[in-house]
Amino acid sequence: MSSKLLEKAVTEMAYLPGIGKRTALRLVLHLLRQPEGQTESLVEALQEFRSGIRQCRECHNISDSECCEICSSSKRDRTLICVVEDIRDVMAIENTGHYRGLYHVLGGKISPMEGMGPHDLTIESLVTKVKRGDVKELIFALSATMEGDTTNFYIFRQLEGLPVTLSTIARGIPVGDELEYADEVTLGRSIVQRIPFEGSLKG
Amino acid sequence: MSSKLLEKAVTEMAYLPGIGKRTALRLVLHLLRQPEGQTESLVEALQEFRSGIRQCRECHNISDSECCEICSSSKRDRTLICVVEDIRDVMAIENTGHYRGLYHVLGGKISPMEGMGPHDLTIESLVTKVKRGDVKELIFALSATMEGDTTNFYIFRQLEGLPVTLSTIARGIPVGDELEYADEVTLGRSIVQRIPFEGSLKG
Repeated sequence: MSSKLLEKAVTEMAYLPGIGKRTALRLVLHLLRQPEGQTESLVEALQEFRSGIRQCRECHNISDSECCEICSSSKRDRTLICVVEDIRDVMAIENTGHYRGLYHVLGGKISPMEGMGPHDLTIESLVTKVKRGDVKELIFALSATMEGDTTNFYIFRQLEGLPVTLSTIARGIPVGDELEYADEVTLGRSIVQRIPFEGSLKG
Repeated sequence: MSSKLLEKAVTEMAYLPGIGKRTALRLVLHLLRQPEGQTESLVEALQEFRSGIRQCRECHNISDSECCEICSSSKRDRTLICVVEDIRDVMAIENTGHYRGLYHVLGGKISPMEGMGPHDLTIESLVTKVKRGDVKELIFALSATMEGDTTNFYIFRQLEGLPVTLSTIARGIPVGDELEYADEVTLGRSIVQRIPFEGSLKG
């Protein structure tokens, strides 16, 4: 490339996942065609995000302040904690609008293959929270993989003897899916763990 | 989203073409997982690019200085000018390594549909350059569309009577392509405008 400035911008853009050199070039040239203010806003937003964002001291979700909006809300049920791997899972569950409890973000799952042990996760802080005694129910919402199950089981062992109910999100056929395309394990589980028919069409 | 900082970063990212809210979120969360230095480098590169980049006063290509590397190079044939629409075309031709002349970037093509008239392009500066008398040949390398042809023809009319050879890049079947998949217009043209067989396998 004839311009060092362009080359540097493209190289940096291409460090982002899923953005190749060609896409990076397209994006950077797009910025060139837009008013300078657009680049300034983008740059400022990224800078402020990266340097300003924190981890909530309670649930380890990302937060603009020491304690996140969910944990500091008075409208949330503080006796219910949903355990998730990642902050994206919090967003996904929040988007459903069906959950009014708190969260606990583990920061991953136990995976010897990826060098993730229990101490790389926020399990200790979860156990401490439960020991404090306010929590009545813990909902495991980890991926339905071996690593997810291992992590659930590890936490279960840590909490043995404590007066807390453990539950896990329902596994089954997604709403709107055709049975013939469902995988066998899910379909099998959904028959074994069938639930009472409610005779209503509401979700 | 529970974080205003995150939301702003995602919104700004999603203004980029082809980047939806979901991809933007993935990119921004990726930056969060990387050392802060990576965001700083990206931000700096974009900032320096957007505020530092200029247009070459000769060929209107983007440039770090007043006159671009190609125009100021002593190794280039200054009697030959390749006329292109866009700076990306310059990059594409440069990448072939087969061209040693100069360029002229029009900044688009004449397109009444998109409100682009001859005066929105750098045609005047091209005509002035040719009138100066150093240019022997002008190679049209615009898209083979009606707009491209119109633009070629407009420039041709502006240059009528001036001692300059006009040529256009060869159209035909791409190297390595199967005939059966070629479109009819290209295939037809490539037969009518056939070239002497050289009896060599070199490109």
